[in-house]
Amino acid sequence: MQPMFYAVIPAGGAGTRLWPLSRRSAPKFLHDLTGSGRTLLQATWDRLAPVADAQLVVTGTAHAAAVAEQLPALPAADLLAEPSPRDSMAAIGLAAAVLTARHPDQDVVIGSFAADHVITDAEAFADAVRTAVELARADYVATIGIAPTGPSTAFGYIRLGEEISGIAGGHQVRSFTEKPDPATAADYLATGEYRWNAGMFVVRAQVLLDHLDRLQPALAEGLRTIAAAWDTGQQQEVLAQEWPALTRIAIDHAIAEPVAATGGVAVVPGEFGWDDVGDWACLAELLPASSGGSGDGARVLGEPSLTLIEDSPGALVVPHSGRRVVLLGLPDAVVVDTPDALLVTSTEQAQRVKEVVSALADDQDGADLL
Amino acid sequence: MQPMFYAVIPAGGAGTRLWPLSRRSAPKFLHDLTGSGRTLLQATWDRLAPVADAQLVVTGTAHAAAVAEQLPALPAADLLAEPSPRDSMAAIGLAAAVLTARHPDQDVVIGSFAADHVITDAEAFADAVRTAVELARADYVATIGIAPTGPSTAFGYIRLGEEISGIAGGHQVRSFTEKPDPATAADYLATGEYRWNAGMFVVRAQVLLDHLDRLQPALAEGLRTIAAAWDTGQQQEVLAQEWPALTRIAIDHAIAEPVAATGGVAVVPGEFGWDDVGDWACLAELLPASSGGSGDGARVLGEPSLTLIEDSPGALVVPHSGRRVVLLGLPDAVVVDTPDALLVTSTEQAQRVKEVVSALADDQDGADLL
Repeated sequence: MQPMFYAVIPAGGAGTRLWPLSRRSAPKFLHDLTGSGRTLLQATWDRLAPVADAQLVVTGTAHAAAVAEQLPALPAADLLAEPSPRDSMAAIGLAAAVLTARHPDQDVVIGSFAADHVITDAEAFADAVRTAVELARADYVATIGIAPTGPSTAFGYIRLGEEISGIAGGHQVRSFTEKPDPATAADYLATGEYRWNAGMFVVRAQVLLDHLDRLQPALAEGLRTIAAAWDTGQQQEVLAQEWPALTRIAIDHAIAEPVAATGGVAVVPGEFGWDDVGDWACLAELLPASSGGSGDGARVLGEPSLTLIEDSPGALVVPHSGRRVVLLGLPDAVVVDTPDALLVTSTEQAQRVKEVVSALADDQDGADLL
Repeated sequence: MQPMFYAVIPAGGAGTRLWPLSRRSAPKFLHDLTGSGRTLLQATWDRLAPVADAQLVVTGTAHAAAVAEQLPALPAADLLAEPSPRDSMAAIGLAAAVLTARHPDQDVVIGSFAADHVITDAEAFADAVRTAVELARADYVATIGIAPTGPSTAFGYIRLGEEISGIAGGHQVRSFTEKPDPATAADYLATGEYRWNAGMFVVRAQVLLDHLDRLQPALAEGLRTIAAAWDTGQQQEVLAQEWPALTRIAIDHAIAEPVAATGGVAVVPGEFGWDDVGDWACLAELLPASSGGSGDGARVLGEPSLTLIEDSPGALVVPHSGRRVVLLGLPDAVVVDTPDALLVTSTEQAQRVKEVVSALADDQDGADLL
């Protein structure tokens, strides 16, 4: 069979901690958060284009039009719209089932890569993906392990095992872990055996569906039924019937963890910079600080001429309403200015933005801003 | 002659340190800075109404319409528009000269009270003004001395002398001082003999003009020429000719200091709260802090429902654009949100807003925001 590598981009997630830029109507992946001129979704596409034979995006119906607009090279057939979020296994499983149905004569490897991560060193990323595809062709569920930059408690960890002979850079996965407490995270780092799990999975579509048949037969059955109808006039009818009943489960729990336990998962240690841009503090660290002049040490995401920053090193200003933003003498401040809502906080408090969004959700006027 | 007390309100001053609320086009005195529902100008009017027989406002031509709109009870004839700022002596001298010309058969006492100060305890203020009027009728230049709340270096000080017999509450003024350095200010306070100079001067119009004739004859002559033409068809013509040539000098230097040296100035120690709302930090202290709930200890000038404040005691939020303002975990922050410009700073840095305004003045786009 003709080999083919399809990049699958699940474009979901609210990015609540990046409010008020990230909204339900325009979540994180639709924004340029690095000042590169490309949104996170577009940057994901650009990064995968050199290694993938084709790409497919799975997103919510509410965002399908925006995704299509941002990715003019994406064929309409390769934009799969989910009626509602059913977690990552349903999204990736749908892609696998649809692609398998569409390409019966090809040996399709799929690789899932979130639409809202930032990766530096695209070449090292591409190298890791190529190795993962090799491992997938050897019937592994392959993942890419991110080199930890600290004992983060925000991510699950992957414990590396023996090298896999014949495929340079491939290791067995001993186990996946849940997000650890700080002490455990520090222990993990001390061993040198652990990598962060960024949800990148590369696997033959057929291998994935076989694991799913065995481990989540009801979900597999539902996805197969939907895939069979996808390119027909019955798509919406079948979706309406089957989708709400699909098991909500992450691919990590459905496939990666149980298959790792029986030696079926491999990992490629990635040697590229990676960030999931979890909150405004993470974003501030990603952006280059201006040096010299009055805004010394501060970051601007957007048009610098809209800002006037004095004595605020470590601060992040996002001028996104067209108004002039003046920041004076507040180191590490975070100021996000949008046409209908303004956030002022500090990098230290940035992870609490989620609480604020919850509070806004509780009143009618506030809910309009989410 | 029939006695008459005319309150004269010089409505000028840019209030630069209260940018971006205070603008050239709408300076400090045109704003409600206390959340009372009345602007500083209106509150000044309200405070003087019970003690004055009439009131007169001197303002720049650019603000005359706004003043008239805010003070519907002010007769058009009692709104004097200056073609350009020539400092306080010209403004108050003009009022004295115009009122003397208009009321030749009345013994007019005038009292000058800035349009942009905040005074608490209107009754104690009225008492002090009445005593000052009594002193003025005895031919003193009378002032009201503010009880210092600390060794401020932002104000000039008045040194009290002997009590004046026959007028309870009146003291001789030994001298006026320039704004002192911190050590000198502390020394002043330790003596108990010093009061702040808030520029409140109460004096018979004729006494003021006589002092002016003697001390600033050219200015006196110019003002008399203008006053003679004021209520005629020649007002604008004479103003255009005479006004630009008037000496720029403060009433303190022109009259108060030299007259004090010869024993002609009296002071009434005021027992009311006073604030010139010099910057956002001062304003924050004037406003009541919310207590309890998530905004505990923070102040809002404007509509509280537009704000969401968490863990920011001592902060001041001014939601003035209609947008939602969220402040999270930044004690003592100052956030002033207007439709075209946003200021984020701290109460500690608030006096530096002036620098920012200077920086904005240097670029074309910024100058539009001043």
